[in-house]
This record gives sequence, C-alpha cells and structure tokens, in this order.
Amino acid sequence: MAGNIVGEVDHPEPAVVLADGLFPTHSVPLSILTSAGTLICCDGATDKALAAGCTPTLVIGDLDSLQADRESLSGDVIWDNGQENTDLEKAIERCINNGISEVTLLGITGLRDDHTLANLHLLANFSGAIRLTAVTDFFTIIPLSGEKKFEAEAGRRVSLHCLGKSVKITTDGLKYDLHGEMFSGSGHGMSNEATGDSFTVTAENGTVLVFVSHPS
Amino acid sequence: MAGNIVGEVDHPEPAVVLADGLFPTHSVPLSILTSAGTLICCDGATDKALAAGCTPTLVIGDLDSLQADRESLSGDVIWDNGQENTDLEKAIERCINNGISEVTLLGITGLRDDHTLANLHLLANFSGAIRLTAVTDFFTIIPLSGEKKFEAEAGRRVSLHCLGKSVKITTDGLKYDLHGEMFSGSGHGMSNEATGDSFTVTAENGTVLVFVSHPS
Repeated sequence: MAGNIVGEVDHPEPAVVLADGLFPTHSVPLSILTSAGTLICCDGATDKALAAGCTPTLVIGDLDSLQADRESLSGDVIWDNGQENTDLEKAIERCINNGISEVTLLGITGLRDDHTLANLHLLANFSGAIRLTAVTDFFTIIPLSGEKKFEAEAGRRVSLHCLGKSVKITTDGLKYDLHGEMFSGSGHGMSNEATGDSFTVTAENGTVLVFVSHPS
Repeated sequence: MAGNIVGEVDHPEPAVVLADGLFPTHSVPLSILTSAGTLICCDGATDKALAAGCTPTLVIGDLDSLQADRESLSGDVIWDNGQENTDLEKAIERCINNGISEVTLLGITGLRDDHTLANLHLLANFSGAIRLTAVTDFFTIIPLSGEKKFEAEAGRRVSLHCLGKSVKITTDGLKYDLHGEMFSGSGHGMSNEATGDSFTVTAENGTVLVFVSHPS
C-alpha cells in the first residue's frame, strides 16, 4: 500500500485531535499534545500547534482559519467544506473511518461558546463509536455509559453532567454519593469531590459526562 | 414595607446576574454590566464586579470564593450552601421569587467547562419561567420556544443549538435556511449567517439556543 494516501497511512498511538478552541496552558493537556503519536489539527488549530513546536500529522476542515502555507505542512491536508458538521466532527469521523479506536481531544472548550457547547455534545454523541477523552485546562472529561472506576486521590473535584435525556446515576467514593438518581441537563451534578484513591460512576440508560479535575 | 428586607426590596430594571465564569472584556457585555439597575453577583463574581467599579445589589452563593469583606458590601448578602444547585441557579430562582420578569446573564461561560455546560443548560431550562438572555464576549444567546424575529445586519454569525431533545427548526433570513428540520444536540447548527437586516427563527416542540454574534 502507498504510504501517504489518506485512509491507508499508519496512525501511531496515542492519537490526539487539537480543536480550535482555547489552546492548552495546563501541563496535563500540554503533555498529551507533545507526546501525540498522531496529531490531527482542526483548521486554525494547526497554526497554534506549529507555534508550539508540534507537527500536525493531518489537518482537516474548511481551512478558512488556517494561516500557515499549505506547502509548508509535512502532514496530510484534507479540505472539507461540508456545512453539516463542525471541523471537530469531521476529525472524529476521519478517525473512525481510519480505524483509530481511541482519541484524546484537546482545545474543545473556551473561545466561541457555541462551539464549546457543540463539542461537549459531540463527546457524548460519538462515545458509542470510538473511545473519546477530552482534556482541558481544568478537567479530564470522559463520556460514560455503564460503569467505570476512576483513579483520583481525595479532594479532586468531580462534576457529572447528562445532556438532556434523563440518565440513572450511581456513584461510590464521592463526598455526595448518588444512589440511582435520575439526572438530566442541569447543574445538579456540579462540584462533587473524590474522597479516597478512586471512585466509581455507573450510568444506566444513557451517557453522562464525567469531569475530573487535574491533580493539584 | 421595610426597604431592605430581601424579597420586599425594589429591583430597578434592567436586572443583571453576573456569574463567576470569565469576566467580560467585550464592550457589549461590559456596557450591560455598567448600566444594570439591579446587579446580582454569584459568589466570587462579586470581587470581579467590585474591581470593575460596579456595586452589587445582591450577592448570593455559598460564598466560599468571595474575597471581599462582607461588611464592606452595601447590598444584601445571601448565604446559600445548598448542594443541589449552582450559584447561578440560586440567583435565577431568587429573581423569579422576587418577581423579576427579565434578566440578562453575564459571565456564564469560560473558565470551568462543567459550569459553562451547566449554565447553558440552565438558560434553556428556565426559559419558561423568566425571560433570560446571556451575553458573552462572543455572542448574545437567547433560549427560544416558538417564533422570534432578530434584528441583525448581514454577515452576523448565527448558531443554533438544541440541548438533546429533538426540536423542529425553521428559519428565514439566514445563509443556510432551515425548513422544519429536526435538530438535536450536535454541531449541525453552527456558523450560519444573517443575510439581511433581520432573520426569524421558529422552534417547535422544544427550546433552541440562538447564538447571535456581536456587531463588528
């Protein structure tokens, strides 16, 4: 197979998508960015990655925000002007189509509020098709259906958010544990707190976004 | 009636709630902040308002973020440590209970991503009980059920977002008009554009958040 035809290239792990929201400043997302095996940049995020000394493997979007000279990019560039979805959605779909099974998303919040909201919804919407984790300057955000144990020492802030549809939530190891309570889109799950070395969240009949603050 | 008992005080219009997200820097939200007749501050947002030369009418929250000396505040201070809702939710409920019919929300996005998401959901959740508008550094955000005409010259960016439940959307006056299309939580409604002096959005069977960018 040709080595540089999109769809046939190798994608060394870990795969990271950098969206065009606020560029990370916290050490946790920055460390993920610099250690990416495959770095997929959404449109204008390409310039931010280059400025930080990172080399995009793939650039995707309508490229209306891209400042860098396309000839200067060593990776693949995919011009996709579709109006039906955002550049982040295009990037995630490309990952799925290329057989990538796990991706960390950076730069999905901050700046334009409409994109922040849409991006957090995408995180939940795609969680059945690919393993997604988002990391911002404040939180690691995991979309969860079913049960998962999280490693987090006492005091770490934990927020839970369901995106509209009611989801039955149970937790173990949080300051305010939940016992099969029905959650929907509201502020009821904000600012809980880990009490030990780990906690468990169970989401029945839907997806919950689990926000875990970075180690202090 | 006593003049300073909470629940019985007058609330000169316009009423503004300042939440503890990113403090505004754009002239549109700053102008709203400085012209508030009643300024309700959520917890730590009080310090930001004071630093900007604004005098809170009312401070509400668990006050764990408040730096200012409570004795130095000329307005009312309500300590509410309830874990079931956020400070912004407490502030909106207080407005409803005090008979305020229309409020502009500032500082609801940026900084903590969990609060940004919850606050945007609150905007939609409370829209049946009080007229709410949020203004950020990027957009004026209006929760809409039914039909509304917006004044906005050609080129203004317009994004539409439904928060999970499918809503039937029709528009007139946008670059990519919608004709009774079903929308749910995704990026499908991002980055549309006004084409004339006004546009109309109709939302059937649910609430859509309409994001309109500020004049350039």
